[in-house]
Amino acid sequence: MSFDRLITKIKELNNPTVVGLDPRFEYVPKFIQDKFLLEDGESMKAAAKAIFKFNQSIIDEICDIVPAIKPQAAYYEMYGHFGIKTLEKTIRYAKLKGMFVITDGKRNDIGATMDAYASAHLGSVSIGENNCEPFGADALTVNGYLGTDGINPLLKICKESDKGIFVLVKTSNKSSGELQDKLIGDTPVYALMGDMCEEWGKDQIGQYGYSSVGAVVGATYPEQLAELRKRLPHTMFLVPGYGAQGGGAQGVAAAFDKNGLGAIVNSSRAIMCAYKNEGCPETDFAKAARREAIRMRDDITSYIK
Amino acid sequence: MSFDRLITKIKELNNPTVVGLDPRFEYVPKFIQDKFLLEDGESMKAAAKAIFKFNQSIIDEICDIVPAIKPQAAYYEMYGHFGIKTLEKTIRYAKLKGMFVITDGKRNDIGATMDAYASAHLGSVSIGENNCEPFGADALTVNGYLGTDGINPLLKICKESDKGIFVLVKTSNKSSGELQDKLIGDTPVYALMGDMCEEWGKDQIGQYGYSSVGAVVGATYPEQLAELRKRLPHTMFLVPGYGAQGGGAQGVAAAFDKNGLGAIVNSSRAIMCAYKNEGCPETDFAKAARREAIRMRDDITSYIK
Repeated sequence: MSFDRLITKIKELNNPTVVGLDPRFEYVPKFIQDKFLLEDGESMKAAAKAIFKFNQSIIDEICDIVPAIKPQAAYYEMYGHFGIKTLEKTIRYAKLKGMFVITDGKRNDIGATMDAYASAHLGSVSIGENNCEPFGADALTVNGYLGTDGINPLLKICKESDKGIFVLVKTSNKSSGELQDKLIGDTPVYALMGDMCEEWGKDQIGQYGYSSVGAVVGATYPEQLAELRKRLPHTMFLVPGYGAQGGGAQGVAAAFDKNGLGAIVNSSRAIMCAYKNEGCPETDFAKAARREAIRMRDDITSYIK
Repeated sequence: MSFDRLITKIKELNNPTVVGLDPRFEYVPKFIQDKFLLEDGESMKAAAKAIFKFNQSIIDEICDIVPAIKPQAAYYEMYGHFGIKTLEKTIRYAKLKGMFVITDGKRNDIGATMDAYASAHLGSVSIGENNCEPFGADALTVNGYLGTDGINPLLKICKESDKGIFVLVKTSNKSSGELQDKLIGDTPVYALMGDMCEEWGKDQIGQYGYSSVGAVVGATYPEQLAELRKRLPHTMFLVPGYGAQGGGAQGVAAAFDKNGLGAIVNSSRAIMCAYKNEGCPETDFAKAARREAIRMRDDITSYIK
């Protein structure tokens, strides 16, 4: 229906950030790695099980201060169907702990195929009389290159099941301008894509003024962030690129509206690997993740409102 | 390195088509459904196992006449990690039968994350001393909205492991023009994306003149297909939209070069569900798929060269 559920949670915790869970086996502390290597050998199964344990411990430590997690599908696909099982369990666990879950899959396709993605990630699938929920995330990132045909199946599920999507608009990477900054008349491609987000979401605007159709806008381009915030008043922003990719909290502030709402800022590696950066004992990894999550929250909230 | 392996296979069988395996549980004949529902109840596990049996039977019937399959990831994600296991097994089985496998995932991301997708779908992942191959497809469809940062990790694997990618250029759906037909100066977005494919592939051109970077160009836009064939001399085309989506064989002919090479045309539902369209006994589903695959081959080859 809208991003009200997410925004309510952000207000409650006074924390407009999301923790990206993009785990590689190498990020998992050695004492956890060893436990599962012993059980299942040097296998994708062992890696996937170790990663679930890692995710679970981090979720336990952050769920009372951070409103949302954003698992990145690529890092689970890396470990085949074992990894995908870990993705399912991570989503389920975070939801049990009251967190909002954004699956970062950047999915895109058309018609019946987009329908399949929408059912998989946000909806449910009927098998006989049984209704199964394959992943059950609250929101999904998507790529709008194929136009409205690729978005309509998602809008239906957003409306029926109170879910949301974030469409790639201006991404945080260096080469994002190769297509996204090109001008169509006077309008850059990213702004055109942003306008489509406003159009797609116009019938699903919630109490805070934001629809179920959000946009991904990178922290690394603060000018475009500010420009898009003005241009897209009903579009919630998911902002990657803070920290590791070089986007600072000051620039990120431009993503928020005059009420301090309208955006959620992601950090992944800096939180998952906080124990490495801190140099604390590796058994302390989850508490280190919490410390970094608090530092990030305080850094960002100090610049908004 | 290039699409030589695929093109050699196409020449050998004189068949420039690919069978899309986009299976929904509903497509599987009832006698197979029942067998697995009995074993595992009305569950994603039963659906995924039934689908593997269905895929396997179709592969058995077409592997001597069709060079490639194209499983669409969305239809496997629909059944959670059980579905993903079926995707893995389908790819492995088709390769054992000598087929070329294109995973249709339209994946896209940047840097380390695109690296993870590339390792997952085309490459391998190290766990300790062990090198695991999560999916092991020969090629992957990708979305280029994020620019070169999203493609470079794939090019590395293409070169090292003789794999390929197909980048979305002009898709077959009705709304594809909302972004793809927009003009940047005098150049439509799809042509700009096509030019990027030529650039990305320029160091990996094989004996037939095609690189490892192909393009997805829909059969439903024969004019653009012809225009792009001229514009992109080293870019192999993957052509969806034949049959069900309304693209005819005559229009599709424009996708091929003067040697009758440079493209592979996909059909999914018309082949998977041929038994329903024919009205033959459902136990005959795999032979019906073969008959439709032959009809399609003859239809398309009658228009080329």
